[in-house]
Amino acid sequence: MKSVQIGILGFGTVGSGVVKLIQENRALLEQRLGGQVVIRRIADTDIQRRRNVDVDQTILTTDAMAVLEDPKIDIIVELIGGYDVALRFCREALARNKHLVTANKALLSTHGLELYRTAAARRVSIGFEASVCGGIPLIRAMKEGLVADRVRSIVGIVNGTCNYILTTMTDSRRPFAEVLAEAQAHGYAEANPSLDVDGIDSAHKLQILATLAFGAYVPLDRIHVEGIRQIDASDIEYARELGYRIKLLAIAKQLNGELEARVHPALIPEDDLLASVGGVHNAVYVVGDAVGSLMFYGRGAGQMPTASAVVSDIVEIARGLLHDPSARGVPPPQISEAEAEVKEMATVRSCYYLRIMAIDKPGVLSRVTGILGSNNISIVSVIQKGRHEQSAVPIVILTHEAVEGDMQRSLRAIDQLDVVSEKTVCLRVEGVTD
Amino acid sequence: MKSVQIGILGFGTVGSGVVKLIQENRALLEQRLGGQVVIRRIADTDIQRRRNVDVDQTILTTDAMAVLEDPKIDIIVELIGGYDVALRFCREALARNKHLVTANKALLSTHGLELYRTAAARRVSIGFEASVCGGIPLIRAMKEGLVADRVRSIVGIVNGTCNYILTTMTDSRRPFAEVLAEAQAHGYAEANPSLDVDGIDSAHKLQILATLAFGAYVPLDRIHVEGIRQIDASDIEYARELGYRIKLLAIAKQLNGELEARVHPALIPEDDLLASVGGVHNAVYVVGDAVGSLMFYGRGAGQMPTASAVVSDIVEIARGLLHDPSARGVPPPQISEAEAEVKEMATVRSCYYLRIMAIDKPGVLSRVTGILGSNNISIVSVIQKGRHEQSAVPIVILTHEAVEGDMQRSLRAIDQLDVVSEKTVCLRVEGVTD
Repeated sequence: MKSVQIGILGFGTVGSGVVKLIQENRALLEQRLGGQVVIRRIADTDIQRRRNVDVDQTILTTDAMAVLEDPKIDIIVELIGGYDVALRFCREALARNKHLVTANKALLSTHGLELYRTAAARRVSIGFEASVCGGIPLIRAMKEGLVADRVRSIVGIVNGTCNYILTTMTDSRRPFAEVLAEAQAHGYAEANPSLDVDGIDSAHKLQILATLAFGAYVPLDRIHVEGIRQIDASDIEYARELGYRIKLLAIAKQLNGELEARVHPALIPEDDLLASVGGVHNAVYVVGDAVGSLMFYGRGAGQMPTASAVVSDIVEIARGLLHDPSARGVPPPQISEAEAEVKEMATVRSCYYLRIMAIDKPGVLSRVTGILGSNNISIVSVIQKGRHEQSAVPIVILTHEAVEGDMQRSLRAIDQLDVVSEKTVCLRVEGVTD
Repeated sequence: MKSVQIGILGFGTVGSGVVKLIQENRALLEQRLGGQVVIRRIADTDIQRRRNVDVDQTILTTDAMAVLEDPKIDIIVELIGGYDVALRFCREALARNKHLVTANKALLSTHGLELYRTAAARRVSIGFEASVCGGIPLIRAMKEGLVADRVRSIVGIVNGTCNYILTTMTDSRRPFAEVLAEAQAHGYAEANPSLDVDGIDSAHKLQILATLAFGAYVPLDRIHVEGIRQIDASDIEYARELGYRIKLLAIAKQLNGELEARVHPALIPEDDLLASVGGVHNAVYVVGDAVGSLMFYGRGAGQMPTASAVVSDIVEIARGLLHDPSARGVPPPQISEAEAEVKEMATVRSCYYLRIMAIDKPGVLSRVTGILGSNNISIVSVIQKGRHEQSAVPIVILTHEAVEGDMQRSLRAIDQLDVVSEKTVCLRVEGVTD
């Protein structure tokens, strides 16, 4: 039987998942591929630690270069993560005309352009289905399923940790810090949770998706990013009373030739499908001009879902190699020479939810609404929660669509009022996506 | 610029959508494909009628064979629908080693095996993304995204007409006949609605999906099919009170080497994502052994969503033809020699909802529950709705998991009781899919 030889760099959680999946579904893969996927070498800095898979010890090495330089290896699978070392090895792989499969979203969102272009120039494949939303075949849908469509927008929940925290806060009415600590105890959040809860991981994924969808490189630093730390249990409660749920969204939209790219928490209508996406799940809407709204849902992380995506890329490349050596397998994304023009956040239009903590005395509301009005922001509803004479009570405001710059100017003025006791919470409200 | 020549058979709604999409997104398609898709001929019995697209009149013909025999045409796109004529033309196309794209689910669900095998033998592509759930890239996800996974189950809402009717019945609390008439007036249902409301169209799609997912041909007549005509507004109301929604589901599951394939209305928990899928939308869960539960959602029909899927297949085949003439484009599904062994419906296990219309007098409940108990069916809850001495009132029962054959035997006995005034409504209850 014909075979394709792969070398794996990084024998951690995902690496062992990939080995396990190739072993367990060997017969199925052979039947579907019409050939074998042979794991020829695995490199890791630690080759002593026991994993939940059995491998022939002689294929393990601490020398990644030995794997990269092995002329028998057709496909390098980079599962190290992070930036410097992974980047070096990806460059080495492409320089040797080896096909590359990677799950490394941090790397692709910062050095993707270089890697895509190198792969294109060398006519080798680069598979990265696993880099965004684990096992959900979103990259493939974008490249193939939607090939006839002009993508209008991408709106999704792409970080499982944040969605777990927000879902748990919503269901149990408990504060952020307490739920985060619990998530850390359960292994759903890292000891240093910043990458997740500050929205950075979501921005990485959005960078990859938007670049693919719009065919122009979206620089990571042009994506506006806010996390979920400032969200109070009371915001979730008021949002619920108003008929909304709060989710961390990654949003990229193209409208009249202008591109918006942003990650921030948002209120979404409770009857939108995204509102029902709970726990660690991910879900992404993609709107195409012909196909309309599609939504993709599943586990966005985890050992086996991620391994499933990695192996799907390996098989796609292997199909080309086995049945037709000149086939390109997974061609790199087509990206225009010019970078995408991303709109300044200050010019983006949105509806807003505000929670202003103000001393409960006559005239306060008029001063607050006066500031909004003078900045061209009109109001949908105002609810003052509770009454505590001379102490701060929340004023919850929903606005019509307004310009971000006007809102930021209003917030600075509102927070300087002597009657306002703490920084105002400002969240965007996103409409129903379909 | 290199080009691929296509011939379209059938210039109806989908046909004009395909032409429109190729025209409108021409620049985008050329950029993504690195070549042109040229519509060389279009055949239809009526070439006088005006469509919502402009085409060079000289490419229109009433002679389909002239298109099939044109040696310059690489890809035949069959959009006629139905059985006999479409089958003949698909055979003619494959016999001439032309690649085939079809949106014809009725044809594939009955003659797919022959067409897949012929295409495989002749090493030509057969693309049928548009045959199931319009623009949702479900076929592609199954063939490529889930290539590393053993599929455990498929559970979905695959008929937009039924979902529109059930959603409207649920929201407006109106009866089936009234909502169906309205759907017909709006063009959401055919004058002869049987294909949709009797579950036949859903069975066609399930046949295609299950054959692909499990790699063995599932004969259409082995799929158990029930439609939605018997569902009363009161059933929807009682289901709601119990925390469920009623949806028409297409279900295929592989468990311990045994395959279940069935289409029927079912109660699903209101917090399941499928319960929130409203209107004409489709949504399908696919559970893989590694990837876990995925869900795909979108418009399952309509001119442009279907055209989007058709063109995605054309582009995929064209990529192979333009860049590498030996590439196979969209390989036919791999299907084992032996047909799938589909479980007898009588042996399938399920939980049930029953609505028994019985005269309200002492001892009735004991006779009904006695019949269920003697058939090994145990009860979760019984609610007797209303009291009308000596007239029929509904008794609503939810059961634990039971065997279908036992349930059918019980129903025959219950409906023969002198106190039971009409045929008992029996619906299955499906668990949360994730």
